[in-house]
Amino acid sequence: MKKIDVCLTPELLHLHDIENSIVVVVDIFRATSCMTTAFANGVEAIIPVATVDECVAYQQKGYLAAAERDGKTPDGFDFDNSPFSYMAEKVQGSTICVTTTNGTLAITKSKNAVKVMVGSFLNLGALTTYLKDQQYDVLVLCAGWKGKPNLEDTLFAGALVERLQDEFMIEEDAALMAQRLYNLGKDDLLACVASSSHVKRLQRLGIQKDIAYCLQHDLYDVLPVLRGNSLVNM
Amino acid sequence: MKKIDVCLTPELLHLHDIENSIVVVVDIFRATSCMTTAFANGVEAIIPVATVDECVAYQQKGYLAAAERDGKTPDGFDFDNSPFSYMAEKVQGSTICVTTTNGTLAITKSKNAVKVMVGSFLNLGALTTYLKDQQYDVLVLCAGWKGKPNLEDTLFAGALVERLQDEFMIEEDAALMAQRLYNLGKDDLLACVASSSHVKRLQRLGIQKDIAYCLQHDLYDVLPVLRGNSLVNM
Repeated sequence: MKKIDVCLTPELLHLHDIENSIVVVVDIFRATSCMTTAFANGVEAIIPVATVDECVAYQQKGYLAAAERDGKTPDGFDFDNSPFSYMAEKVQGSTICVTTTNGTLAITKSKNAVKVMVGSFLNLGALTTYLKDQQYDVLVLCAGWKGKPNLEDTLFAGALVERLQDEFMIEEDAALMAQRLYNLGKDDLLACVASSSHVKRLQRLGIQKDIAYCLQHDLYDVLPVLRGNSLVNM
Repeated sequence: MKKIDVCLTPELLHLHDIENSIVVVVDIFRATSCMTTAFANGVEAIIPVATVDECVAYQQKGYLAAAERDGKTPDGFDFDNSPFSYMAEKVQGSTICVTTTNGTLAITKSKNAVKVMVGSFLNLGALTTYLKDQQYDVLVLCAGWKGKPNLEDTLFAGALVERLQDEFMIEEDAALMAQRLYNLGKDDLLACVASSSHVKRLQRLGIQKDIAYCLQHDLYDVLPVLRGNSLVNM
């Protein structure tokens, strides 16, 4: 039977053998929710890069560029890290270069996997259907916050474990804990995340609307996957 | 206000600033439950060491010695890793050298803290009372399993967070998640841990009696603390 496991932060990724797994990277607030939304709105490709400097270099070559550090957008970029900013006509058919505090690092760290995919509550249903049909184990890699686990990414991991539990075996406690936390909170995810450290940080930035948006399930039928150095919609 | 935080595995300890914190190390199955039991039965001191070889060297100098690797006791040691083996007359007044897969490593990694203490459900009440009276932040360090988080240590962390929540602030999501998991499972911890990976491993070793014992709350009024290279009862 295939296995599903959860890595609560990229700092623990070296403990997982990903060569035979599909890695689903998640950064709910807001990197992977933005990426999902971007593909749903017709973006052609997303290039994740590790540093703001690399992102600026792509912008100077004519790409659209999005950067986030500590929840804020440095000056001069084309998006403000809100998923709503990807619902614009300019994204249609474009290639966007992206760097974020936690999310893009998690993607670049996963390159040895069979496949690297991007997950969010927004495309949970599409991911579930796809992963059930594959022959590989699944590892959900939570981007976390500066190396530490966070609640919202863990909840997404739990949601995917819950949806895949009939086809995949749960072997490790991180997956079990994520699943239990999701089932405990799923009836009101907004209330469930309200006391989390990251949500408090984000609320200070005034993005309550983004938080509610990112917790919606199964909004888009998109499957972002890493091909070479770019994410594309399968 | 003082803070309480949780580190789910020693692999994440470098992300925590422990210089002004009391670190409570926990390895429920079974290192810190054994240590608590040993002090309750009159052990004078416990010397935690990293390797089996160091442990053998102490034994050759005349100390009692306990070693565990992958849940089993290598040949030639004085204890079999069951807390029940520490309820013997030979432990009274003795100094025991101990090495375990996960627990002793967590202790030795915490040496820069204000204090390193040993926690288990068995001495949860004593720890709670003591920590409330101190002026320092608290970090619960879960020993985990080979670098990965495990359920039972996380549950203990959640229990301590729950008991200290009126006097300590919860700032990070790991503490919040541990608290929720504990509250979800506390009415029947035995059932709660039954599906965990480590418990399944241990059940294969036939130690169901140890598992039930280690989940009992507030059995002993002992406070193991690291002084130099030895744990003593405060």
